[in-house]
Amino acid sequence: MSKAEQTKANIIEQAASLFNQKGYAAASIADIMEATGLKKGGIYNHFQSKDELAVAAFDYAVDLVNQRILGAVTQEKNALARLKALVAVHLDYIDNPPVPGGCPIMNTAIEWDDNDSILRDRAKQAMDSWRNLIIRIVEKGIKKGEVKANTESQTVATVLISTIEGGIMMSKLYQDSIHLERVAISLHTYLDSLALI
Amino acid sequence: MSKAEQTKANIIEQAASLFNQKGYAAASIADIMEATGLKKGGIYNHFQSKDELAVAAFDYAVDLVNQRILGAVTQEKNALARLKALVAVHLDYIDNPPVPGGCPIMNTAIEWDDNDSILRDRAKQAMDSWRNLIIRIVEKGIKKGEVKANTESQTVATVLISTIEGGIMMSKLYQDSIHLERVAISLHTYLDSLALI
Repeated sequence: MSKAEQTKANIIEQAASLFNQKGYAAASIADIMEATGLKKGGIYNHFQSKDELAVAAFDYAVDLVNQRILGAVTQEKNALARLKALVAVHLDYIDNPPVPGGCPIMNTAIEWDDNDSILRDRAKQAMDSWRNLIIRIVEKGIKKGEVKANTESQTVATVLISTIEGGIMMSKLYQDSIHLERVAISLHTYLDSLALI
Repeated sequence: MSKAEQTKANIIEQAASLFNQKGYAAASIADIMEATGLKKGGIYNHFQSKDELAVAAFDYAVDLVNQRILGAVTQEKNALARLKALVAVHLDYIDNPPVPGGCPIMNTAIEWDDNDSILRDRAKQAMDSWRNLIIRIVEKGIKKGEVKANTESQTVATVLISTIEGGIMMSKLYQDSIHLERVAISLHTYLDSLALI
């Protein structure tokens, strides 16, 4: 990596952390200048606007989230074991999140859902990709006879993601993993109910 | 209500809607001036700071949420029917939310969870009160023999709230109630599993 590429990567990393903790509107270029030690020109040298940096930071954050999810899922072969691993990987979100500040997809969705914006579109794309991962795992599980044939893969995706995200929201609010632990146990029971016995 | 009280109530109502849609950091006093038709002095005549107005707007929004939840819950006698009513009332959050912008407790939690702030404390209090309502319903249901005796009321509160809030987040992101509908069906099955048969 060239020096310029290193600087750009560092801006993205610092910005991702700030945006994910404070929100895109509240985190200022001054905050990013302070975190990176760069002057304004040093930042705008790499990004034409705050929006362009925000999108790069979001993509970087989602990439870290996806790496963690895929890293967990691919260690298992059975469909339901894969989905349990996907749930379990979120138990660590309070003490050791992929990016400081919790789930960037939920945070970005909440901040931008009432406005037409490129970040809302990006959050939708990231959510689509997460849903599609779960849908593919369920459908493969049905084909392989691991999951009941009448299981609605779309429903499984919505239930897993909603419950995990709500659990992250509650655990972050109280700074206490207990809420994530409770939803993980409940989701295990839910996933067990989908098993073809 | 005096003219001054009416003006103050209108500022709170407009501010609650703006803060809930845009976030507290992004919604400016200029936005509130535009929504109310008041000059800056006309707003600061009633509130000493943006923070004071933000707290009043949050309390107002949570009050509307609670009215809707309690209105649904108190129409039922059986504990599990009460909890199903609590779930069902959220199906309307996309087309007819209590306050424009979705759930103010989740929105405020997401914006402030990484910062010490009065709004984070307020969001915790509102969340405590919602959890306690569910806990009381479950424990009364256990006493009355409607709910299995080994049911953990704290877990039921976490699972219901997490799943509902995550469902609101997904449905708002896609502007499609289908995600809330899916989680409602899943939570009905979960609540049925707690029934003392």
